[in-house]
Amino acid sequence: MYAEGNRMKSQKEEAKIFIKNDLIFSTNLELSQSFFGEKKNNKVYLHPIELFYLSNIRNLKVLEKNEELPLQQIFKRFYSPSYFVKYNVFRDWRERGLFITFPERISLKNFGKSPIKKYPSSTYNLNTKITIYFLKEECFSLAFGKEARSLFENHWFGQWGVYKNVDRGNNLTLDPVETAYLAKKGFKVIELSSDSEITFEEICKEIQKRIPYFSRILEVYEDWRDRGFILKTGFKFGTHFRVYFPNARPVSSKKEWVHSKHVLHVFPKEVSMPMSEWSRAIRVAHSVRKTFIMAIPGMKEEDYLKEKTPIDFVAWHRKSGSQVERPDQDDPSFLVLSLNEDENLSGKMLASALDRADELGLRLLIAINDRETSITYYLANRIDLPDSEHKYYEIEWFTP
Amino acid sequence: MYAEGNRMKSQKEEAKIFIKNDLIFSTNLELSQSFFGEKKNNKVYLHPIELFYLSNIRNLKVLEKNEELPLQQIFKRFYSPSYFVKYNVFRDWRERGLFITFPERISLKNFGKSPIKKYPSSTYNLNTKITIYFLKEECFSLAFGKEARSLFENHWFGQWGVYKNVDRGNNLTLDPVETAYLAKKGFKVIELSSDSEITFEEICKEIQKRIPYFSRILEVYEDWRDRGFILKTGFKFGTHFRVYFPNARPVSSKKEWVHSKHVLHVFPKEVSMPMSEWSRAIRVAHSVRKTFIMAIPGMKEEDYLKEKTPIDFVAWHRKSGSQVERPDQDDPSFLVLSLNEDENLSGKMLASALDRADELGLRLLIAINDRETSITYYLANRIDLPDSEHKYYEIEWFTP
Repeated sequence: MYAEGNRMKSQKEEAKIFIKNDLIFSTNLELSQSFFGEKKNNKVYLHPIELFYLSNIRNLKVLEKNEELPLQQIFKRFYSPSYFVKYNVFRDWRERGLFITFPERISLKNFGKSPIKKYPSSTYNLNTKITIYFLKEECFSLAFGKEARSLFENHWFGQWGVYKNVDRGNNLTLDPVETAYLAKKGFKVIELSSDSEITFEEICKEIQKRIPYFSRILEVYEDWRDRGFILKTGFKFGTHFRVYFPNARPVSSKKEWVHSKHVLHVFPKEVSMPMSEWSRAIRVAHSVRKTFIMAIPGMKEEDYLKEKTPIDFVAWHRKSGSQVERPDQDDPSFLVLSLNEDENLSGKMLASALDRADELGLRLLIAINDRETSITYYLANRIDLPDSEHKYYEIEWFTP
Repeated sequence: MYAEGNRMKSQKEEAKIFIKNDLIFSTNLELSQSFFGEKKNNKVYLHPIELFYLSNIRNLKVLEKNEELPLQQIFKRFYSPSYFVKYNVFRDWRERGLFITFPERISLKNFGKSPIKKYPSSTYNLNTKITIYFLKEECFSLAFGKEARSLFENHWFGQWGVYKNVDRGNNLTLDPVETAYLAKKGFKVIELSSDSEITFEEICKEIQKRIPYFSRILEVYEDWRDRGFILKTGFKFGTHFRVYFPNARPVSSKKEWVHSKHVLHVFPKEVSMPMSEWSRAIRVAHSVRKTFIMAIPGMKEEDYLKEKTPIDFVAWHRKSGSQVERPDQDDPSFLVLSLNEDENLSGKMLASALDRADELGLRLLIAINDRETSITYYLANRIDLPDSEHKYYEIEWFTP
């Protein structure tokens, strides 16, 4: 892993860095062969982040007016906001034996390296419209009778009887999202405490009191449900929904429990979330071996135009075997966004970064620097949900 | 598991429930032997939750003025807010073959059934006070030199070099909590962009911009650090800190990595958190086999007096073997708080419920009803941290 580093160590004596009027450069062209800096007039000009890396990790001497500059001085002199988080990501990537650079150093085009995952789609009909009793204080609904049971068995709306034990109990329990969805589809809903009919809009208003951004959550639920996917609560996995592919049923023909393989989390464009929360959601999904799907509903054309999330790095990956992609031979594979553990990220910012990666045909890597300088990577993969106007991404916990 | 249920089914014919002027009763005294209702004048008076349970799950007939009342009518007639979440918890507990009742039905005293976990404590000295460079935009600090390294090696403040690779790099990275703590202990802190000294109060003000409730988090960090515990970021586990017991070092004598066995999450009394988030934090800890410690800082005597969280149930547990605790022979084991997945719980409410359980010598069970009527239980265990004025609890994911 450190082979390249060791090779450079032996050249340590000649590899010096000079500072002159805020310019940082070296006359050792081997730095450029290892893809540090930009070569111009037989010199290699370095970025302040490369400077700190080469001095701190590769122990290169730094000279200003013939005097050696200690590490502490280098850091103080070149520090600017987000210098540290960027340095940590740069350092981590290079230490893995991989290459990384700044977007302004390369000519950006569509590299065609962002595969899109195709998801299936199917249609279904809700023929029987039954009456639902809505408990507005708890945001649940109940329904009774044979037709309610068939709504569960054929379309997996609600829970008949008891979870994993359908024969215990004689009622259907519908959750808030299911209640609103069925009301929108024309089901008659009676509000229990007033014993009178309640409209779809009124239901949403009630639910919104308990569930922030409910309309965004419903928007996503509808988008998937209308395409035949089954979405059920993802509470146990700390996400909004778990997802079953079209035609899943609560109990399979062999009476075996069907396990979901995906969870879906809604990340409204308006919401700014601390990275720690965001990472926690993905981590639970990972620990139960489910694919994490992220939805950012509500993005409009103008949101993408207004919000241009700054990209920190362009990075090269490994090839098969022990080979790595090289900046002089290969196209890069990733756009990298660096964030600190205690930073917030809004849905809008993230959507814009994902969009930028799509444009460039690269995959977005979100690199999070924790408080001990350890970097965790999350990789985004665009999903194609047939005819949907929303954008969805699979996010995976990634080791470069 | 359903043995008792089956026995009752055979008596189904005689077991009828009558409704008269809002009173619910049965003349079948066997219900009382199975610990349903309250016996008075040769009748068993039932709670509306017991009524719905016996009708829905045990299929008992319900009669009013000689007419059978269908399930739907029973529910409509006796519904009141939180009826449904309470019913689900009651149902789940009874279906496990265990007993549960309403607090008003039993005489409460101190049952002496809440064991307190004793934690160790130790002292340490910070002799060398070095200078720290604070990057206020990123809320990190750096320190350099031999004494900075010894601060890491002997007291595990910050990260020397790189996480799990201390020999790569020549600086100490301190996180926001460590920076504030060391400033409070008298370390000199220089703010990097202005190159001037910054006070403890100013540091906290800066950090508070990025980390909400930072003073509460620091309060807890101090409480444990001062007793010799090592607290490091719990980012990877979605909690504030991971905890090492006193005298832990970053690298053990055998050069092996030391694993933490506990994570700690701060739950300020002022913050109201959706149950889903709360449960997510505990679930990650569980999946990595770490004990989850909850801190609720800031509670004052008057907070406990003002906020009396209503307790829903008193419950009996299993004994060893296949025996269960019986209300006529055994003291109960748990106080139960029932909440829906979409409900919020504030630190204050939780602290008050935990306090009530301590008073009664019972353990608090937090029962969360998800959208599919599946109940998840979390059990709280009081921790005794020597001489601390704060209260801490181990919370475990619990299967009754």
